[in-house]
Amino acid sequence: MPEQISIISGGVGGAKLVEGLYHTVDSKQLSVIPNVADDDEFYGLWVSPDVDTLLYTLSNRVNRDAGWGIAGDTLHLQSALTQLGRDSWMTLGDQDLATHITRSERLQRGQRPTDITTWLAAQSGIDCRVLLPTDDKWQTRIESSHGVLSMQQYFVKHRHQPTVKNLYHRNITTTGMSAEITPETQQALEHSDLIFIAPSNPLLSIGPTLAINGVRECLTNSSAKRVAVSPLIGGKAVKGPTAEVMTALGYRADVLGIADYYHGLIDTLVIDEQDQQHADALAQQGLEVIIMNTLMDDLTSRQRFARSLLDAIADQQAPRKTEVA
Amino acid sequence: MPEQISIISGGVGGAKLVEGLYHTVDSKQLSVIPNVADDDEFYGLWVSPDVDTLLYTLSNRVNRDAGWGIAGDTLHLQSALTQLGRDSWMTLGDQDLATHITRSERLQRGQRPTDITTWLAAQSGIDCRVLLPTDDKWQTRIESSHGVLSMQQYFVKHRHQPTVKNLYHRNITTTGMSAEITPETQQALEHSDLIFIAPSNPLLSIGPTLAINGVRECLTNSSAKRVAVSPLIGGKAVKGPTAEVMTALGYRADVLGIADYYHGLIDTLVIDEQDQQHADALAQQGLEVIIMNTLMDDLTSRQRFARSLLDAIADQQAPRKTEVA
Repeated sequence: MPEQISIISGGVGGAKLVEGLYHTVDSKQLSVIPNVADDDEFYGLWVSPDVDTLLYTLSNRVNRDAGWGIAGDTLHLQSALTQLGRDSWMTLGDQDLATHITRSERLQRGQRPTDITTWLAAQSGIDCRVLLPTDDKWQTRIESSHGVLSMQQYFVKHRHQPTVKNLYHRNITTTGMSAEITPETQQALEHSDLIFIAPSNPLLSIGPTLAINGVRECLTNSSAKRVAVSPLIGGKAVKGPTAEVMTALGYRADVLGIADYYHGLIDTLVIDEQDQQHADALAQQGLEVIIMNTLMDDLTSRQRFARSLLDAIADQQAPRKTEVA
Repeated sequence: MPEQISIISGGVGGAKLVEGLYHTVDSKQLSVIPNVADDDEFYGLWVSPDVDTLLYTLSNRVNRDAGWGIAGDTLHLQSALTQLGRDSWMTLGDQDLATHITRSERLQRGQRPTDITTWLAAQSGIDCRVLLPTDDKWQTRIESSHGVLSMQQYFVKHRHQPTVKNLYHRNITTTGMSAEITPETQQALEHSDLIFIAPSNPLLSIGPTLAINGVRECLTNSSAKRVAVSPLIGGKAVKGPTAEVMTALGYRADVLGIADYYHGLIDTLVIDEQDQQHADALAQQGLEVIIMNTLMDDLTSRQRFARSLLDAIADQQAPRKTEVA
């Protein structure tokens, strides 16, 4: 069994593997590294959608139908904001807003985003590490048929309908094009013997983390087993525009495209049974392939998946390839 | 009939006269000047209790049982804050918080508090002027048996149980002991031919406004008829610690104490029928006295009161005394 496990994750899709692992391994072994590039300001409050999806999922407060937000949450505050003439395309529930208010208050007082997240996780009874990849305000920008959009504008306001032409990231604190890994995340990655990339949108949810100075280096130089789980099943995402965005940005919208995007960063790709026809092609690229049923609808199937995945990784005989062919 | 009317008011008590006048005169004639010294920060949001009580009352959204807050409001956000381990003695409803979030966002962007209040009033469909007496952050401090308290700590957290020893006000922006009147409020007071002091706690709700540089001068130099409505009936407040605070700070807890506190600032004191035994003593001090039923439970009685009061003022034969004897 691995002693330290890190998982780089986006929101809803990635949370499935994160939750499965959280309930399968000793949570003290686990460091979850969420995407922060979807973060944005609404009504003067700093909102971290992917971080909160993970926090709500791990504390079992998440709205299971949506995959995000808090179960049974109400929208009374937002209705009142609408009455004040405010935009309301970003759904922020009343209980959910308690998180945003608290985070914003602490940011205003100059606390580190990493420390605020640690505090929020602890207050929610979560006992694994939830480590921001960066303390910088690092935001995805999407050049699209509707102009340059933030992630929430693209995904929520425009319901991921605009055609994506290009992606980049901005450090909105420095207005520069780079962000720095936190010491905590660097240490977690360096000390892990198993690193997962969760089944999230590679370009929109994992790419922003990989683009932070230090993250790619940690993965490249790591002696850990590095395992990605494909978010695509039969060329389609369970939810969201992963296939469309991959196609738009020149990648195949299938597990070969995933392998291409993570080239040099992973040893093993976990693919769904529906995609086993690609296994040989992946192996020819030097990847170890694990074929599983990757659909994880409920907590039981998530735990079962995590257990089987850890077993399959333990069973892999081949030593980790330090250089992907 | 007067052409321009200003009313200096606190929250719940004062709102009764403000609402009565609002529905009686042409609202374009009316400038409401609320107390801002109860304002305080909660969860990083700037909350203006008296301003909001007036806004909610005039837009008919107020919780009529409490006199403050929004009718039918829920506490889902605050419950979630409590789960995060936060203090929750200050009741902030979900709809109410939309106001605090919006105000705080605009303050953060550097907008003037006066302009924010004008915008909030307009968004709520209120068509009289609601003019902050100052744009400074001007807060009441209460030296008490429980130490130095802010107004909300004294009134809400400690349910006005501590013994009040002394009162003062702080400009928390400059950390100085003075605040400046806004040009808008100065102009409203200078151009009014009738100025009311609402039936609010003189020391806690009117005093802070009188202590702003320029306000007392406007009242003293005004050629307007200046009329205070006593918040005490038979030596007792309808609600709240007015009598106790007056006694604690060396004033009689009755209409004579009210007259004493407003000495030099008013021409007329409106007292309740229960207090008519004091009418002669008040007249001997040079005050005009109007005796009425000052209890204003519902909107109908508030309008009736405002109508009768304006008629009584119009009927006063004696010219305004420029110097109170």
